[in-house]
Amino acid sequence: MAQATLIEHPFTSPAAALPAQDTVVLRLCAAARLLLGKARNSAHLALLQTLCLPVTALWCRVLRFDPAHPDWPDRDRFVVPSATLHPLLQAMLHLSGTYAFSESPLEYGMHPGVETAPGPAGQGIAAAAGMALAEHLLAKRYGRSLVNHRTWVLARDGDLATGVAMEAAQLAGRFGLTQLAVLVSPTPGADRTEFSNSLARFSASGWSIRKVDASQLSAINGALAATLRAKKPTLIACMPPESPQTFRPQPCLSPEEELTGPWSPTARRGATAYRSWLKRLARHRLRTAFERETANTLPSLLMEDWSRLCRRAMQPTHQASTQQAAITSLHTLSALLPELTVLTATSALPRTSAAAHIQPDWPCNIQEHGMAGMLNGMSLHGGILPCGIASMITVDRMRAALRMAALMRQKIIYLLTDDGLALSHDGASWQPVEQLASLRAMPHLAVFRPANAQEAFACWKAAIRWQSGPAVIMLCPNPPEHSYAVPMQGSAARGGYILHGSATRHVTLMASGPEVSIALETEQLLLQHGVQAAVVSIPCWEVFSNQPEAYKTAILGTDVLRVGIEAASGFGWERWLGSQGFFVGMDDFGVSAPANAVYERFGITAGAICARVLKHLRTSGAIEERFLQAPSPTSRQQEREPL
Amino acid sequence: MAQATLIEHPFTSPAAALPAQDTVVLRLCAAARLLLGKARNSAHLALLQTLCLPVTALWCRVLRFDPAHPDWPDRDRFVVPSATLHPLLQAMLHLSGTYAFSESPLEYGMHPGVETAPGPAGQGIAAAAGMALAEHLLAKRYGRSLVNHRTWVLARDGDLATGVAMEAAQLAGRFGLTQLAVLVSPTPGADRTEFSNSLARFSASGWSIRKVDASQLSAINGALAATLRAKKPTLIACMPPESPQTFRPQPCLSPEEELTGPWSPTARRGATAYRSWLKRLARHRLRTAFERETANTLPSLLMEDWSRLCRRAMQPTHQASTQQAAITSLHTLSALLPELTVLTATSALPRTSAAAHIQPDWPCNIQEHGMAGMLNGMSLHGGILPCGIASMITVDRMRAALRMAALMRQKIIYLLTDDGLALSHDGASWQPVEQLASLRAMPHLAVFRPANAQEAFACWKAAIRWQSGPAVIMLCPNPPEHSYAVPMQGSAARGGYILHGSATRHVTLMASGPEVSIALETEQLLLQHGVQAAVVSIPCWEVFSNQPEAYKTAILGTDVLRVGIEAASGFGWERWLGSQGFFVGMDDFGVSAPANAVYERFGITAGAICARVLKHLRTSGAIEERFLQAPSPTSRQQEREPL
Repeated sequence: MAQATLIEHPFTSPAAALPAQDTVVLRLCAAARLLLGKARNSAHLALLQTLCLPVTALWCRVLRFDPAHPDWPDRDRFVVPSATLHPLLQAMLHLSGTYAFSESPLEYGMHPGVETAPGPAGQGIAAAAGMALAEHLLAKRYGRSLVNHRTWVLARDGDLATGVAMEAAQLAGRFGLTQLAVLVSPTPGADRTEFSNSLARFSASGWSIRKVDASQLSAINGALAATLRAKKPTLIACMPPESPQTFRPQPCLSPEEELTGPWSPTARRGATAYRSWLKRLARHRLRTAFERETANTLPSLLMEDWSRLCRRAMQPTHQASTQQAAITSLHTLSALLPELTVLTATSALPRTSAAAHIQPDWPCNIQEHGMAGMLNGMSLHGGILPCGIASMITVDRMRAALRMAALMRQKIIYLLTDDGLALSHDGASWQPVEQLASLRAMPHLAVFRPANAQEAFACWKAAIRWQSGPAVIMLCPNPPEHSYAVPMQGSAARGGYILHGSATRHVTLMASGPEVSIALETEQLLLQHGVQAAVVSIPCWEVFSNQPEAYKTAILGTDVLRVGIEAASGFGWERWLGSQGFFVGMDDFGVSAPANAVYERFGITAGAICARVLKHLRTSGAIEERFLQAPSPTSRQQEREPL
Repeated sequence: MAQATLIEHPFTSPAAALPAQDTVVLRLCAAARLLLGKARNSAHLALLQTLCLPVTALWCRVLRFDPAHPDWPDRDRFVVPSATLHPLLQAMLHLSGTYAFSESPLEYGMHPGVETAPGPAGQGIAAAAGMALAEHLLAKRYGRSLVNHRTWVLARDGDLATGVAMEAAQLAGRFGLTQLAVLVSPTPGADRTEFSNSLARFSASGWSIRKVDASQLSAINGALAATLRAKKPTLIACMPPESPQTFRPQPCLSPEEELTGPWSPTARRGATAYRSWLKRLARHRLRTAFERETANTLPSLLMEDWSRLCRRAMQPTHQASTQQAAITSLHTLSALLPELTVLTATSALPRTSAAAHIQPDWPCNIQEHGMAGMLNGMSLHGGILPCGIASMITVDRMRAALRMAALMRQKIIYLLTDDGLALSHDGASWQPVEQLASLRAMPHLAVFRPANAQEAFACWKAAIRWQSGPAVIMLCPNPPEHSYAVPMQGSAARGGYILHGSATRHVTLMASGPEVSIALETEQLLLQHGVQAAVVSIPCWEVFSNQPEAYKTAILGTDVLRVGIEAASGFGWERWLGSQGFFVGMDDFGVSAPANAVYERFGITAGAICARVLKHLRTSGAIEERFLQAPSPTSRQQEREPL
């Protein structure tokens, strides 16, 4: 009889028998359940009800969160990556703070308590691992007096079964992210075997697994306490009670005012913690640096210092490949920007002598997708400028995470190595073809493809300045074949510029990356035929598109034949070609052969391009036939002079 | 002393003490090691040497493979997805057959024994799971007398740690693919913890794990025998011996001729098995069907029968959404084409009444990437026409696998559901924006986006006819807003056609999918302003591009304003717009709002497009100002008449 009463009103009758804190949790949980009943997405009500008590306990007793300062850098992150579970976050914000519960989902950007936008399954766990890594790194720099918070994820069982979550789980285990915890409950009615298997897989990835009855507050309290002591990332599986009647909607009233809003346990604990943290911040010796980094602003003289360092570092390696130059730029930058953190999923990168004093990269081995998801979380956490290094061909695997970064406009820099046809010996599947186009199609993402060492540094600078979202820099391991002087302060910052050639011209040769040197060779060949050409390097379409029309027209030329050259798919190139232009590139996947043979196979050679241009000019009658003669040795001599 | 001799010449001195078969294996293993020493990629020699004995034992004693008929449909599949491990396959083919060992890698398409092209890590395990599923399905149809082979994968430890492999491992466990086995060895010098964790994760996914000393033939024999009896997919971890000296290169000679080529144990076993299989095939009652399916040819009257069935099934649902229509087409097709097999990663699809007699779909839940990898394997296996169903937004996750399908030109049909802005209530991340462009950029892939139920069926037919590689069909869950008559045999087979409007026109409105109905509405609005327009539906760019220039010009019109309309990124649309045209679509990610509000937000409404067209015509002076008047009620009446 007494038990029946307990089910109906868990906190009224035997309240005296419970510790005071537990009573508060139960009362707030009942209030949260009332709110959940109002949520639009009632199909998932059973799941929300199951998770309600664990989440309320977490918020009331553990979560470090001050509703009055929801953007406090040292707050606990409570990550809810699934829109299905958002009502729980809304209920907690409503009960503990000033946010008013509404039926529509709370979106990323609307409230600082929303740590991430909902995305594909598993991305939230990866992002949370990134946040925990960011916390770990900042704590190492600033000490636990300033940085000491945890990352909690409210996940769905489907999240655990995805590849990206399993990759991120491995990384979290490898990096020892003890401040990370996942709360999850099996979907009601689903097969429990799959759920148990997921738990076992997380356990095998170095996680501590705790299974609790989601209706037993004492068990939940024990699991939360154990999580605080854990030496591994923790997964708390909140199992629905055996008898579902425990979750019958309870006819209780809203809790009294003294338990909600600024008087809620969360808010009172949060306010105290926030005040004492402010005091510690005020007397911290690195306060300025901490405030600058958490505000995501750059040092004022960064660009000047960086240019100076880079000039010095690149002096001996003037003929370096774009890959070497970009890595050198990265190393010099990391000496100036301590918040720069590198995750890397590729081995055997060139190390410069200047690299001795930088922090170690975080190796992500083969787990590119998990790494990309973590980079999102590091950026969302704040105080970190994340940079990921991976082979260009693996960008397909990271795409879902990269899209989330673009969607949330996070500043993340990707260095994508091994661009170009250099890898052809290992088979066609390793040559990027459509990756460039598919990345350029993504909103807010800037895609850079530098042609030489100087441009690689200029692209780095432009990527740092790119405010709309993430940036990728495509890097080629081979040095460019032709040496040509580009001013150290080259105008890659405008996305495209005339690299060489006359303003009065018949032909504009547009190229990026390793193909710029082919364009330069073509220009010289054309000149031997009496055809004036200009070589335009377009390292970044997105930046170039943002330039004024007059600038773009001046660069691309009017009434000239425009030719695009890129060892990639020509999809999207029509934008720059005008009505008469044509594109030289790849209309198929690559082939296994030495790089030079692959260039020949696709007709991306100066000779082939020159022949196509001359044929086109003849057919269209753009210039008179008499100019288009085979060069004589003398004329070749004469025409080379002006170069 | 005797032991030292054993290490030097493992098969000479104590040969008498070993069973005869083991002697043969050891001699062939020594011969294979000699060949491996010649391989170009000597950095991985230690790994190759470790795996040499297990692989030789597998080939000599277990593998069902006839070198004289390497494309035998009932052969065991020996999948080597990593180019690093290819020398082992080459050595085995050399020793057992007629293939001559060479230093360059053996590529997919060069020899039927190469079951897959090397690709990103993990794809091979997923493909092998697909092959095992194909075998399982074919065995169910034709019985074990005709189909009874296994799939063996030679994987690297990195493969096991990838998300796609872990997703595929879950699916293999869920589907109970007992005929699947993975051989793997830890990378020499790498941390063994990660490797052990990988094994534990596979065990948690329902796999049987066997750890053997790779230098102990008896242990290897035991593991292989256990694999044949296993009731789960098996993973054999071949551990390098504790003392590395066992693998010192042995100064042995090539084995005598009587052990290699047609006299090798593999070839002799294979030839016997092949002959008796041929006899069983000859008297099998489904011989014709089996031969047709394994040759990947379609029944001769398929299209006619299918059209008839579809016409009947669609009669009551004439106003169906493209999604409903495509699923109906799928169900009718599966009644005609038993080799059609559907893996599905999305729930709650419309079921038609005709669906009762089709085979069950294979549910892949949230594991889209693993599913896509398996579809590749099912197609590579032969005898199966694989079809995958997933939500359109998840195509980013499947991209790496989809690329492998395009690279190997595999005929796989993807139905991508939930296209369009219909899902906007769940947040911006669920609205496809750049997916369409990023897929169109991929070589060999055909991307279909039908506008109504009839076009959905036409796209299905065109996808079946598409010979170059995989095809995706984008489907919208909402029925088109406007009803208009498209002939049942609509010309979607040519990729694009004039749906409505006059051949003499000022404006061509190009659209696909749900935006076609907006184009039709715009056409009517323009007509009220005295502007003649035609609506062109382009359900497939790839097919349309392959049409003769004259056809394309006739469809798109010359000297007209071309307008592209698609609720997606405009990247790549310049191809069709000409020098004056413009695109109406999305230049940003979506927003959370009802679908109509999202269309308004991006200006993809008939009113907005009409205004832009009129403004453009006025500015360019394409037609005289007097025609561009606001319609009076009378003129509207008059102009509507011709419709």
